[in-house]
Amino acid sequence: MPARTPVTVIGLGAMGSAVAAAFVEAGHPTTVWNRTPSRADPLVEKGAVRAASVAAAVAASPLVVTVLTTHEATREVLGPVADGLRGRSLVTLNSGSPAAARRLAGWVREQGARHLGGAVKDVPPAVGGADTLLYYSGDAPVFAEHERTLRVLGGDTVYLGGDPDLAVLYEAAVGGTLLPALVGFFQGAAALQARGLTAASMVRFSVKWFGMIASVLPALAEEIDSGDYGEPLSTVDVFAAGMAGDTELGREAGLDVDWHRPFHDLLTRAVESGRGAESIAVLTELLKKPRS
Amino acid sequence: MPARTPVTVIGLGAMGSAVAAAFVEAGHPTTVWNRTPSRADPLVEKGAVRAASVAAAVAASPLVVTVLTTHEATREVLGPVADGLRGRSLVTLNSGSPAAARRLAGWVREQGARHLGGAVKDVPPAVGGADTLLYYSGDAPVFAEHERTLRVLGGDTVYLGGDPDLAVLYEAAVGGTLLPALVGFFQGAAALQARGLTAASMVRFSVKWFGMIASVLPALAEEIDSGDYGEPLSTVDVFAAGMAGDTELGREAGLDVDWHRPFHDLLTRAVESGRGAESIAVLTELLKKPRS
Repeated sequence: MPARTPVTVIGLGAMGSAVAAAFVEAGHPTTVWNRTPSRADPLVEKGAVRAASVAAAVAASPLVVTVLTTHEATREVLGPVADGLRGRSLVTLNSGSPAAARRLAGWVREQGARHLGGAVKDVPPAVGGADTLLYYSGDAPVFAEHERTLRVLGGDTVYLGGDPDLAVLYEAAVGGTLLPALVGFFQGAAALQARGLTAASMVRFSVKWFGMIASVLPALAEEIDSGDYGEPLSTVDVFAAGMAGDTELGREAGLDVDWHRPFHDLLTRAVESGRGAESIAVLTELLKKPRS
Repeated sequence: MPARTPVTVIGLGAMGSAVAAAFVEAGHPTTVWNRTPSRADPLVEKGAVRAASVAAAVAASPLVVTVLTTHEATREVLGPVADGLRGRSLVTLNSGSPAAARRLAGWVREQGARHLGGAVKDVPPAVGGADTLLYYSGDAPVFAEHERTLRVLGGDTVYLGGDPDLAVLYEAAVGGTLLPALVGFFQGAAALQARGLTAASMVRFSVKWFGMIASVLPALAEEIDSGDYGEPLSTVDVFAAGMAGDTELGREAGLDVDWHRPFHDLLTRAVESGRGAESIAVLTELLKKPRS
């Protein structure tokens, strides 16, 4: 068996710590650095090496993985040690906008380093799982060379293409459902609590419901890609009819229903533009037309 | 084997037609009525009997199931034939507010009928499936007597309790995630299309992502029920840090991002009230405090 590639992990928040732990457990010589050094303690106990500085961390491995909150934070940490990046492979794992990803990738290449932009599409405890999804995009040779090492972080490791921003683009495009879905769940929990019922009592049903939502996505995507919304599984009118009751439920439970307004507004505009009998997916077309 | 209970289905939209078809296929003598009679044609072909009037439809069966859009629409259709309801079991399947469900249940009982409020927690094509979820609440004896018949509509048939509005309460509490989640998906699809990519290319990832969301609901519900948000899987701060990139992505793709505003507002208020390091589920507490 060939020796495992030495890896450096910079940034030991919950996600960075999970990433570093996965490398250590897979037998990679792992160097770690964090602004607050004590965050490295549990990893050092497992066998990681604590670098005394960012420069030392970068110098320690041919493959450097950053797990910082944003592209800007990543640039800030690496900026002072830019010279050390030359010839190395840098993998940046974080969310952010495509524009920020392109800016960072350009800067990394200017330093003579190769670069993959990546994103972990799951929660920290899932890192290392056989089914955990990670996106990468950017320098194809970096992915080819280090794919085996990167797969340590998740069995569903995907290379999306050469554009350095594709990973965050997909991460954001897919991830944009999370907060709205959670706020919907929180509202439901609050409505049940207002009746003396528990949030736990709805979990089984909600889990099933998210499965139902997932099951209709292929059909909705087909409508969106074809632009043909004429044979709907569920119409704008059905959603529009439901929205009054939805808001009344919130009011009855004494909840803040202000966040419903933009959704009601989208439905109302779709109905008023004569598209009420079309698929709910036609809202995609409205989102494409920003109002001044 | 005992004879199958005769059933009447009133209201033959997509869901009502699916309900009636399931009864027919299970061998129940099935009478149907719809305001536009031609909607019954496919069911009559399968063996259902078309009633000439609502009164005749109600008179035809001891178990009457309405599948109309709202409680108000149900009352409107049944009002003129109220006398005929006496002694029958009425099951109303529709969404709506708990208050509207209670009003309808009260009126039905005044007519001397027994009543179950119900809701189908799935799309019409799923009706009759072994795993399809339906909620019922109201008169326990009606559920006990007709449970076997009602299970024809879905194998995951649940009786939630005696309050007539529990079915729509759970339906709305659980279902409130749908439109926000879909709009998030539509936004992602539009962002990919703006880059010349397809909505279909994100479906596999989105399906997986909804599975991830579902997997964290038990932990979030526990936080909400205990009111202890201090050991978070994901913090308000993490979401707040991500929101700028999320909106920038939408702007870059030329999309309408107005609908982000209430979510950003919730996160900002949570951070400003010093709860940034707590679980994202703490937003539930903010939703409980309506602003004037």
